Amino acid sequence: MLERVTTRLPLSPTERSTPQRSANRAVAEREILDEVLDAGLVCHLAVTIDGAPLVLPTGYGRDGDTLYLHGSTGSASMRAGSAGVPVCVAVTLLDGIVYARSVFHHSVNYRSAVVHGRAVPVTDDEAKLRGLRVLTEHLAPGSWDYTRQPSRKELAATTLLAIDLTEASVKVRAGSPIDEPDDVGTHEGWAGVLPLRRIWGPPVSSDDLPAGIDAPEHVMRRPAPDPPC
Amino acid sequence: MLERVTTRLPLSPTERSTPQRSANRAVAEREILDEVLDAGLVCHLAVTIDGAPLVLPTGYGRDGDTLYLHGSTGSASMRAGSAGVPVCVAVTLLDGIVYARSVFHHSVNYRSAVVHGRAVPVTDDEAKLRGLRVLTEHLAPGSWDYTRQPSRKELAATTLLAIDLTEASVKVRAGSPIDEPDDVGTHEGWAGVLPLRRIWGPPVSSDDLPAGIDAPEHVMRRPAPDPPC
Repeated sequence: MLERVTTRLPLSPTERSTPQRSANRAVAEREILDEVLDAGLVCHLAVTIDGAPLVLPTGYGRDGDTLYLHGSTGSASMRAGSAGVPVCVAVTLLDGIVYARSVFHHSVNYRSAVVHGRAVPVTDDEAKLRGLRVLTEHLAPGSWDYTRQPSRKELAATTLLAIDLTEASVKVRAGSPIDEPDDVGTHEGWAGVLPLRRIWGPPVSSDDLPAGIDAPEHVMRRPAPDPPC
Repeated sequence: MLERVTTRLPLSPTERSTPQRSANRAVAEREILDEVLDAGLVCHLAVTIDGAPLVLPTGYGRDGDTLYLHGSTGSASMRAGSAGVPVCVAVTLLDGIVYARSVFHHSVNYRSAVVHGRAVPVTDDEAKLRGLRVLTEHLAPGSWDYTRQPSRKELAATTLLAIDLTEASVKVRAGSPIDEPDDVGTHEGWAGVLPLRRIWGPPVSSDDLPAGIDAPEHVMRRPAPDPPC
């Protein structure tokens, strides 16, 4: 059960991915990778500290072939990432629960992007602002121009890491359960998928907001993260 | 921005958490940890392989003080986890986007559980069945009794890992943005939170399901993963 019946789409010819594939296939894979990265909201960043892995949820955004990660200068994973050690980043979208006719073939429908690389700290102020804009517009589209942009002090208190998307893979599982033929013939119950969707609730104004200020269009009309069922 | 204004709730007196806390506080923290672990659907499992971190989405379930993880016997993270190396597991629930008056104070509301430990493979057949039942009922409540349970061969093809919840932490961020007093006084726009919720869509029957079989109650009436807004 929870068997990962997935399509592995290697994007780079490294030892961690499959070396042989056609150019067309690579283009298609890259499009799927970008879609998954752009549809996620937070990633999971893994680093190794003193030989032990640490994984933490982290904000991110993609600009072309660059993945930007971001955190407080004080956070352990950001400090480790800044030191140029290998990192691994996962973005996972859970699309549904797959109810099979056997426990063993229960699974999940999902889209999973995994990026391997070394994170480079972005220190130049102008480059940092560009990266933070990408990150902000990923998390909260419309916010960069609507709100006060970072001061010099705030910029200094923010760690921004850049990872090149050269070594990445994307896996997708979609559709019906894959059952044993014997189970299809004998199990009299239901089998199928219960789709999972992320939706926005109505905006909740800040406690300290004066009365009479409505949420702006970019918040009120923010498209749902997942397509409707 | 994306600043993690969080409450850190250390659960264990190790070097990776804070040693001093009252017994009452520890009980409350443990309850929050359990709530987060029980509300998640997949975790992110990080291992270190050849010095580099690897993080992958993984199925799991909790039984008391034990976290069960599960995967194919062939998967790299399961093989590494089985070797008794240190692992780190993150369960993250994203509850909303925090729109502040400055880019810097943009953030997310979330609940985050992080577990450190060494995974122990569960090999005894009876213990393995017990663990798989926990895992199945976590992912798909009601499925264990409704579907065919694992054969000996299927059991052998499944890796089940157990991690003790002795070293874990939970972080929660909830509520309004925390803005600079100057920004509250001068920014004329909106600030607040856009809540994110996970909902189930209508069940989709398997392609190979004969007509006229409806989804059972445990699928049709499965409670939404998040409380309504």
